[in-house]
Amino acid sequence: MQRLSTQQPDFDQRLAALLDFETAQNPEIDRTVAAILTDVKTRGDAALLDYTARFDGVTVASAAELELDRAVLQQAFERLAPEQRQALEAAAQRIRSYHERQLTTSWQYTEPDGTVLGQAVTPLDRVGIYVPGGKAAYPSSVLMNAIPAKVAGVGEIIMVVPTPRGERNDLVLAAAWLAGVDRVFTVGGAQAVAALAYGTASVPQVDKITGPGNAYVAAAKRAVFGLVGIDMVAGPSEILVICDGHTDPDWIAMDLFSQAEHDEIAQSILLCPDPRFIDQVAASIARLLPQMPRRAIIEASLGNRGALIEVADLDQACVLANRIAPEHLELSVESPWTWQAKIRHAGAIFLGRFTSESLGDYCAGPNHVLPTSRTARFASPLGVYDFQKRSSLIYVAEAAAARLGRVASTLAHGEGLTAHARAAELRYRDD
Amino acid sequence: MQRLSTQQPDFDQRLAALLDFETAQNPEIDRTVAAILTDVKTRGDAALLDYTARFDGVTVASAAELELDRAVLQQAFERLAPEQRQALEAAAQRIRSYHERQLTTSWQYTEPDGTVLGQAVTPLDRVGIYVPGGKAAYPSSVLMNAIPAKVAGVGEIIMVVPTPRGERNDLVLAAAWLAGVDRVFTVGGAQAVAALAYGTASVPQVDKITGPGNAYVAAAKRAVFGLVGIDMVAGPSEILVICDGHTDPDWIAMDLFSQAEHDEIAQSILLCPDPRFIDQVAASIARLLPQMPRRAIIEASLGNRGALIEVADLDQACVLANRIAPEHLELSVESPWTWQAKIRHAGAIFLGRFTSESLGDYCAGPNHVLPTSRTARFASPLGVYDFQKRSSLIYVAEAAAARLGRVASTLAHGEGLTAHARAAELRYRDD
Repeated sequence: MQRLSTQQPDFDQRLAALLDFETAQNPEIDRTVAAILTDVKTRGDAALLDYTARFDGVTVASAAELELDRAVLQQAFERLAPEQRQALEAAAQRIRSYHERQLTTSWQYTEPDGTVLGQAVTPLDRVGIYVPGGKAAYPSSVLMNAIPAKVAGVGEIIMVVPTPRGERNDLVLAAAWLAGVDRVFTVGGAQAVAALAYGTASVPQVDKITGPGNAYVAAAKRAVFGLVGIDMVAGPSEILVICDGHTDPDWIAMDLFSQAEHDEIAQSILLCPDPRFIDQVAASIARLLPQMPRRAIIEASLGNRGALIEVADLDQACVLANRIAPEHLELSVESPWTWQAKIRHAGAIFLGRFTSESLGDYCAGPNHVLPTSRTARFASPLGVYDFQKRSSLIYVAEAAAARLGRVASTLAHGEGLTAHARAAELRYRDD
Repeated sequence: MQRLSTQQPDFDQRLAALLDFETAQNPEIDRTVAAILTDVKTRGDAALLDYTARFDGVTVASAAELELDRAVLQQAFERLAPEQRQALEAAAQRIRSYHERQLTTSWQYTEPDGTVLGQAVTPLDRVGIYVPGGKAAYPSSVLMNAIPAKVAGVGEIIMVVPTPRGERNDLVLAAAWLAGVDRVFTVGGAQAVAALAYGTASVPQVDKITGPGNAYVAAAKRAVFGLVGIDMVAGPSEILVICDGHTDPDWIAMDLFSQAEHDEIAQSILLCPDPRFIDQVAASIARLLPQMPRRAIIEASLGNRGALIEVADLDQACVLANRIAPEHLELSVESPWTWQAKIRHAGAIFLGRFTSESLGDYCAGPNHVLPTSRTARFASPLGVYDFQKRSSLIYVAEAAAARLGRVASTLAHGEGLTAHARAAELRYRDD
């Protein structure tokens, strides 16, 4: 794992190299995906059945068999160990409670001349949630995508989840039941995205698709963007820990591991002004790593993209944090709120020594779908606002038609748009 | 101009054909744009100077000469005719006043065990606004893009506007001055988008790019999306008018013209339950069209994509409006608020007979950058919220570390993510 210091003369280049992540699209994947999209658009269910047989090894006689009954979801929920069921319920309740505070409501106001202006906020009609299948099946992702949609008032939530070789994940199905998913189809990959975007005889067309997936799913979402909405095309997961050197170094090491265990290109970085504490964290990493079931992934991730960085002070750490704009930022420091005020760009901020990032992944309440790859400079966590949209409302009373009309007419003539001007003028001429 | 009726047995197919608009990307444009992006990324200002000379016929010795001083903007403003200056000021004031109501603020709450959850809302640091040059130069677009960014508290607003053959548009520069744009560069096309996205020695790198442009600009925005945020990739403009048959038919004809005059692929549709009124509107169109300076464009647009549609009643009109999800929707009817309540999908809704769509384009207050091509199903008008972003805030008190930690631990083990579980567990073990 790299050790850096902001004192190094070439620190800026080293940091840039560390953060550099090639997000270029893969033309071969794009071509494969384009062919699948066209095929599902054209042949509908027949294509969906073909790809599901080919990629997932699941062969069924009709597309209707790809849908799971709500009773199947409920049974999965009831089969869970009590501890798991309670944990899922506790997480769902906390996620719901936090997201309810994100609800936006319609507003309007009336001007003295009777003009009414406003904004109507409405939920999306129908949303599709992509959930990866097989080993990387995360019930927490089901909650994090479906609950905000439900809170927003989305009319119908359609979930797609592949079941490679017929393998179903009870936790995922239980989470779907708990979160109030309306319909579940056991399809995945670009073909599932295509079915949601275009609709087939069996799978209804949705207005927006959210949820994580592999490179094919990401490419498919990017390709159908515009026809439907999408949440984001996520990069590898990242954590930036700012520590003053007074937290248990084992805790910090484990927090770095918890992003690194996601995959070999995840990124874990520590910023700390105390070189001795950095040594202690390095020692904790060396001692704890052999115990970790996913140690090969963690080791690769820390080796490829991790870093322990010595900074001059916590102020400098905050400046760097704003440059890095991390997905997850831990402020494992004394008086964390003081330092939080200096942070402009981060997906989620974990304040204080007891707030491990993993609490946020499951049950603190806020969403775990967060902007990656420096997009926290302009993007936000997934939220209720992603499942609502706004329409402007304009009512101009007869008494105001002249006042506003004259302004519009002057500007429209200035832009050479005579019909625009005339449409306003017709409404205030006396003749 | 097509006449349709919902009574026609094949109405659904006819409507689908009318709405169908091929938004497929053009591979040749994509290739040209990719080359320009790479060149500006690599060579910076030198490439920017080359393309500006080649495409705009403007040759300067150094990139610094591409920047317009704020004094130049102010002079443009002061040169305007008083009527134009007042109209621009009135529009800016109304746009600002409406958008101030869209400001989102940070919030947080404390749970009984001391856990604090919240959402910090911050403005973007730096935003780029693309403004088309030449004949289609719209000062109203400058106001509609820059004012929401300013209200959001964006640190710096950079505008790019090409000046083909050196031709500057005083109204555009005046609008930039009035809206508080910080810096203006006279560059355009894909090269301007590249400069904003990657930064050059002269043009600072931005976090998000908004504003309309031609196919090259749109392709460039789509390509840099992810590195920076973008507003949307807009399709042709649309208006849907629902009329009960009691508005002056000339007003309705002119409202249809005012979208049609934008370009040959704009779409203007009327829904009305009264066939005699539809005849009157058709007669108004025939009579008024020859007077319009842009009649060739209007005629092509109405011929290609316009329609006068007879509906059974206003309820059916609202059902169709939700299917069409238009950019602009006029409810030119008695009791418009009753009907507005039935509309789920529209970019902006213009209520009542006196509210011409063109008032919304210039000065009513709401934004004129609106979702097109049925994207109002999931997208919103450009707003202050496009220039703010959110960070989740999580503080878990020591007293809550066990309660939340046990939930996270159970779910993390269920997902096979041991480091996630351990990071939580370390913080509530007593040893």
